[in-house]
Amino acid sequence: MTGSAAPCTIAVDVMGSDLGPSEFIRGLLYARKELKLDSNIVLVGKEPLIKRFLKVKHAINELGNVRIHHASEVVDMHDKPVQAMRKKKDASMFQAIHLAKEGEVDAVVSCGNTGALMAAGTIRLRPLEGIDRPALATIIPTKQNACVLIDVGANPECSPQNLLHNAILGANYARSALDLEKPRVALLTIGTEDGKGTSLINETHENLKAIDGIINYQGLIEGFQIFEGEVDVIVCDGFIGNILLKSSEALFSFVGNTIKDELRRNAKRMLGAALAKSAFSDMRNRLSPDHHAGAPLLGLKGNLLKSHGSSNYVAIANAIRIASEIVRHDLLDTIQSDILKANSLLLELSESTPAE
Amino acid sequence: MTGSAAPCTIAVDVMGSDLGPSEFIRGLLYARKELKLDSNIVLVGKEPLIKRFLKVKHAINELGNVRIHHASEVVDMHDKPVQAMRKKKDASMFQAIHLAKEGEVDAVVSCGNTGALMAAGTIRLRPLEGIDRPALATIIPTKQNACVLIDVGANPECSPQNLLHNAILGANYARSALDLEKPRVALLTIGTEDGKGTSLINETHENLKAIDGIINYQGLIEGFQIFEGEVDVIVCDGFIGNILLKSSEALFSFVGNTIKDELRRNAKRMLGAALAKSAFSDMRNRLSPDHHAGAPLLGLKGNLLKSHGSSNYVAIANAIRIASEIVRHDLLDTIQSDILKANSLLLELSESTPAE
Repeated sequence: MTGSAAPCTIAVDVMGSDLGPSEFIRGLLYARKELKLDSNIVLVGKEPLIKRFLKVKHAINELGNVRIHHASEVVDMHDKPVQAMRKKKDASMFQAIHLAKEGEVDAVVSCGNTGALMAAGTIRLRPLEGIDRPALATIIPTKQNACVLIDVGANPECSPQNLLHNAILGANYARSALDLEKPRVALLTIGTEDGKGTSLINETHENLKAIDGIINYQGLIEGFQIFEGEVDVIVCDGFIGNILLKSSEALFSFVGNTIKDELRRNAKRMLGAALAKSAFSDMRNRLSPDHHAGAPLLGLKGNLLKSHGSSNYVAIANAIRIASEIVRHDLLDTIQSDILKANSLLLELSESTPAE
Repeated sequence: MTGSAAPCTIAVDVMGSDLGPSEFIRGLLYARKELKLDSNIVLVGKEPLIKRFLKVKHAINELGNVRIHHASEVVDMHDKPVQAMRKKKDASMFQAIHLAKEGEVDAVVSCGNTGALMAAGTIRLRPLEGIDRPALATIIPTKQNACVLIDVGANPECSPQNLLHNAILGANYARSALDLEKPRVALLTIGTEDGKGTSLINETHENLKAIDGIINYQGLIEGFQIFEGEVDVIVCDGFIGNILLKSSEALFSFVGNTIKDELRRNAKRMLGAALAKSAFSDMRNRLSPDHHAGAPLLGLKGNLLKSHGSSNYVAIANAIRIASEIVRHDLLDTIQSDILKANSLLLELSESTPAE
């Protein structure tokens, strides 16, 4: 509905967060003041509740272009996606997606139930032409710059074509979210020698080499290289991506808690920990940055961003910022164009290769 | 060749380690003195080299029942497995496996090229009856007790039967390596609701429930639960297991290096780090324990243990200890018996279920 120049409009589902709607108001204030966000905002959720929080935070004047779209229901974490879509038609998440479908907003941000968001996004907004399944992208820290990991759970059973599309989606996302012109794309496997991976990986690898003009394909990488920062986009299926992301978050917190535990064992260690305290918070900020908190569901005819259920105001503000970046970069158009180019290139190749 | 009571005989390929054969001599001395290991040892490698190191370490008397089996060649890390098997017939790794094949030793320990060890192990020793493919098991730390992760790279493309066999192999390994009577087994997936995972996971899940008497099956777990310690065996295919293991090792070292980096930023932090120094080494010992350094290739008609290429003497000593534990627990017999029971149980079930 809007060109790249004018401020875009973003629907924010304020009901799905663990910290409650007030964290969204705080996040929006932060986005306006600190991130200089000029997008129009539609707050979707229970109107009386939202109005009360706006009043409490004295936010109404500072927030600028904000309106409320009332939705009487909430999808909770235990709702089954398809059931929720049938029974809670007036849920804030579904209403926000409806606004995107109708062209009233350019993007949706929600912290709610991931399964419901993926199901409703896919069913209501529909995949772009030439794409079967959307993919969920996230940004992970590395020794160098941050890196896109895609798919982290939307599609656990990928075909070679799905994986190839994930690569295109991830590259386009890295262009807008990481501001890179030619992001380096790699395919995750378990041994970079020829023929070492699975047949899925080997076929995808060949196809990715064939579309190298469309994305900047660097080849295969292994698990031990994930945090090296030598590539900007790591492509995998949603099964491995989800396990990788969740196990990494779990390991990070496990290591952190083990250090805490060891530092509390005696007075000398406790004194040391007190002196070095700021090092630990700086480490945490470097490795779990709130400014990379949104995970877009890519490949749909609409911009949909999932933010973590436990997102704080900084994370929420940055999810809204990323949503506006995606709109500004015309992500839907560039993805659509790359997908159609890649599909026809692969079709030409398969037609020119004589059957064995 | 030996019953559970008499000391067993273990072939140790001393040529594959990054730290050289002398680390093995040190490891053996440590195993004898600290771990009270009474197994007979066959050192396989270049005899003149081994003799020189035995002399340097003044080890010949302290080592007890040790003999040398000369092998003139070495498989290096860059050798391609099948090529190496053809061209380096007298390599220490292949000679050690040959001794197992001939019944001259009860188990083999090697730090060498994983691919070559898996290929030679599978081809020379052959899988047990009823098993298609062996699996590589490893032990990971958790918040509670250590836990077996299987498969970490032997078989990247699993059928439901392969995954079921991995569960049986892992349960048997946990019995001997972790000394548990009824280890709790779980299947790794991305959402524990019914039908959320892949068709491979869903079919395996049903089969595992059906053989619950043979193993103590606890159901599905997700990536965020891996380090909780609520199960003793985590079952997955070799593709995901390998990526999970390598990415976890990489993340652990990435977090450690980031902390180090932050602690060096100013004098106050450096003082704190100096006071708390022992906390960090204790943390490292808890999370990357050398006493869990061997990864057995399970499911073969022989006991084969892979130790990390960079294993130090403590890790080597413990790999040899684990090998002797496996022999003492008659792992091959119990695995063979469980596999045959499970296969016939599933066959009965499939025959009693009318075709749809």
